[in-house]
Amino acid sequence: MASSGLSGVFAPVVTPFNEDLSVDTDRLIRFGRWLLSKNCGLALFGTNSEANSLSVEERLDVLERVVDTGIDPQRMMPGTGCCAIPDSVRLSKRAAELGCGGVLMLPPFYYKGVSDDGLYAAFAETIERVGDARLKIYLYHIPPIAQVAIPLAVIERLLKAYPDTVMGMKDSSGDWSNTAAVLKAFPGFRMFVGSEAFLLANMRNGGVGCISAIANVNPGGIDDLYAGWQAADADAVQEELDKVRTVMQRYAMIPALKSVVGHSSGDSRWRHVRPPLVDLDKAAEAALFAELDGIGFKIDFGETTA
Amino acid sequence: MASSGLSGVFAPVVTPFNEDLSVDTDRLIRFGRWLLSKNCGLALFGTNSEANSLSVEERLDVLERVVDTGIDPQRMMPGTGCCAIPDSVRLSKRAAELGCGGVLMLPPFYYKGVSDDGLYAAFAETIERVGDARLKIYLYHIPPIAQVAIPLAVIERLLKAYPDTVMGMKDSSGDWSNTAAVLKAFPGFRMFVGSEAFLLANMRNGGVGCISAIANVNPGGIDDLYAGWQAADADAVQEELDKVRTVMQRYAMIPALKSVVGHSSGDSRWRHVRPPLVDLDKAAEAALFAELDGIGFKIDFGETTA
Repeated sequence: MASSGLSGVFAPVVTPFNEDLSVDTDRLIRFGRWLLSKNCGLALFGTNSEANSLSVEERLDVLERVVDTGIDPQRMMPGTGCCAIPDSVRLSKRAAELGCGGVLMLPPFYYKGVSDDGLYAAFAETIERVGDARLKIYLYHIPPIAQVAIPLAVIERLLKAYPDTVMGMKDSSGDWSNTAAVLKAFPGFRMFVGSEAFLLANMRNGGVGCISAIANVNPGGIDDLYAGWQAADADAVQEELDKVRTVMQRYAMIPALKSVVGHSSGDSRWRHVRPPLVDLDKAAEAALFAELDGIGFKIDFGETTA
Repeated sequence: MASSGLSGVFAPVVTPFNEDLSVDTDRLIRFGRWLLSKNCGLALFGTNSEANSLSVEERLDVLERVVDTGIDPQRMMPGTGCCAIPDSVRLSKRAAELGCGGVLMLPPFYYKGVSDDGLYAAFAETIERVGDARLKIYLYHIPPIAQVAIPLAVIERLLKAYPDTVMGMKDSSGDWSNTAAVLKAFPGFRMFVGSEAFLLANMRNGGVGCISAIANVNPGGIDDLYAGWQAADADAVQEELDKVRTVMQRYAMIPALKSVVGHSSGDSRWRHVRPPLVDLDKAAEAALFAELDGIGFKIDFGETTA
């Protein structure tokens, strides 16, 4: 198993759209630079990025433009897992060629109840077809949405066959017992939790960080806990993070994130999502902003214009 | 609501692969011609076609080659619904331009628990972007796999807004009460059941046909019931069909269909599926073939070579 790889806090970067719902890559790049300034890596094309509402071509175009603009690809972990192997291969291959620090790979998620053999074969076939030693995969376990889990038996087979390629995973199961089981079974496997609510527990049990929706709006706060998880006040910092999360979770997460970014940056175009998601309505936005004010939370964009 | 449109029996045509898992379009075309000779239309790119394991480019290439070869596009209902609207638009637009009789449209299926507003917006946005009066949509309701249903309230809104485009649906819920509710709520809406087990009930309640996995191996038998649903022996014909289905359902459906086609046509290349599905193992194949022999079922390819 490889001993080096990515760590820290990553945001599944929300994707800004123009009024016609095309991707506004310039705005995405500005926002990405702000996240990086808060020590937050870019997990472009995550669930919260509405990645599966983007075509492969749109994702390739964004990826190339972000790297072209000078952002360090080693600070990026783009999502590249699709239902169809040719699509996963195309995205993963380009990410590896561009020098991305890793890719976050969903299992094929259309067919349900697939066998471990089939799931293993899907990942293995993708790795073989990419055929690039620069490919570094983080498995994306998110059964509540993908409805296709990545069981420990599949991880074990992948680590045995591709120890230099399969680096770690993002566990978005929301089930700490699964995270704990993986950490215990595979020492050195790089575990990112999918929620900062489990960040402290993850670090205390050998994990390497988190990739969280909320990192889009609270990257600095989450990085404080990541950097200071061994400090005396770590539990108190975790509690502060949980307050923000508790508020955000009362709203539809993706539009809520975009509304908060838009509100804080003074650019209401941020609030738009692609169908089948829907923008937060104005009343919900007002309630969300009031709740965040109530706990004293605000995004500080400083000199940056998101 | 449009009063004309597709009817009868359609197969979600299984997709033959070469040893390297690329699509063997020539073999697909030969098989398609045999299905058409049995009065079975071609629902290319259905669930049983492993459509979501094919890239958009692969599907476009197959679609164009099938039409180029002279197969009547009016006998085709390709699947065009993807997670990303740009992909659904691209496929649907080309299908409309090529003169396909209809398209079978999955809802975007990555995000779960989406609202009726979001689901409606996804279909509406796709229709608006295609912007072609030749587009004829059959909604694809398959909650057991897509995990995103198409509720009656969404159908109602779509029929109101796009009466000349939204023609009907395929109900693969396996829940007759849903089929019955749609038939009752929307007279003239063209209902295809997703299993021939419901074909007789569907025809007796105003439906127009079925789009069934089993039509890949038993197209003639199913068409006999479709054509003769008002005959005195219709219930007996339905029972015969159910015997075949009962056997097939004891195996993983997609690889089982391909194994049967391969066995009957003497071309074992047919048995391959793409991951995350797995080929039927030899023991399961032998058991399946023995069970089909036991009920006296065989595919007669006649002069055709599939």
